[in-house]
Amino acid sequence: MHASFEGSVFIAASLDGFIARRDGSLDWLPGANGQPADPAAPSDGDYGYASFLASVDSLLMGRATYDTVLGFAEWPYGTKPVAVLTTRDLVLPADPSAVVSAVSGDPAAVAARLVDQGRPRVYLDGGRTIQQFLAAGLVGRLVITRVPVLLGDGIPLFGPLPADVVLRHETTESFASGLVQSTYRID
Amino acid sequence: MHASFEGSVFIAASLDGFIARRDGSLDWLPGANGQPADPAAPSDGDYGYASFLASVDSLLMGRATYDTVLGFAEWPYGTKPVAVLTTRDLVLPADPSAVVSAVSGDPAAVAARLVDQGRPRVYLDGGRTIQQFLAAGLVGRLVITRVPVLLGDGIPLFGPLPADVVLRHETTESFASGLVQSTYRID
Repeated sequence: MHASFEGSVFIAASLDGFIARRDGSLDWLPGANGQPADPAAPSDGDYGYASFLASVDSLLMGRATYDTVLGFAEWPYGTKPVAVLTTRDLVLPADPSAVVSAVSGDPAAVAARLVDQGRPRVYLDGGRTIQQFLAAGLVGRLVITRVPVLLGDGIPLFGPLPADVVLRHETTESFASGLVQSTYRID
Repeated sequence: MHASFEGSVFIAASLDGFIARRDGSLDWLPGANGQPADPAAPSDGDYGYASFLASVDSLLMGRATYDTVLGFAEWPYGTKPVAVLTTRDLVLPADPSAVVSAVSGDPAAVAARLVDQGRPRVYLDGGRTIQQFLAAGLVGRLVITRVPVLLGDGIPLFGPLPADVVLRHETTESFASGLVQSTYRID
């Protein structure tokens, strides 16, 4: 792992390991994709999301994830800098407080650049980005929230690896909604 | 779901959803495959296995799983009847107390047969068997124990489904070893 780079993942997945349907849809995710939360459902707060977001300097995501987030009712990252892995022109968010830039290159090069820019603690989002950084040994923290549904198909959270990745389980919390959140470290 | 059939799953999976390596190997599973448990590791008992086994009348597994279990140092199911989904001749376990029979047919037919035989509460084991019974709506209880490792490839626990399967989360327990066990119901 690069000297001071810490890649963190905070993601919801179906019990069978998908982070979205094939078309990118998150309709199976309670309260996501701009849907109002079910008022009859128990409230589990934000599942630690605000606290997680406060623990990182910036975000790095793939182009497909960025385009999905652009479709949300609100830009969810405030003024936190967001780097998008893409070689194409970016459409910027309508929210004027959004800080978005394009980056490209392999995980090690991108990580080094983010460290140089003073943003070593990076929230990695999107299936391909997460998979590439896991394979490159650049993920230090993994927070997975399991949604109690089997989708049968979709965009997988995990992918091929050059070797086993051993994790250290830190905490697990279950919520009234049936979501189960586990935090792992990769040393 | 058939009138009184209850299919139950009790299985360990890697964090990326594999129940074995491609060659069937369970070497990544602490204490499994006849390996002695690491004496330096914390003891987490049997992760509820004996209690789970006591809650079922019989087992149903695929041929590949059966052949893997035959290679274990000990036959792990005592006198609990084990039905093996196969159309080929079975090699029987060396343990004379083992009760093993061959069955074939689609999940609904096999489930009906087990109910007729007075064994409605069935422990389903093996990736293909679990996937087929989930797809047929014949799994009522799912106990998944997540091992804190990413394998990158292997035999997947879950597979394609004709439609989303919504689960009800019942309990989650984490162990000193880093294993996290969740119990779900499918109504």
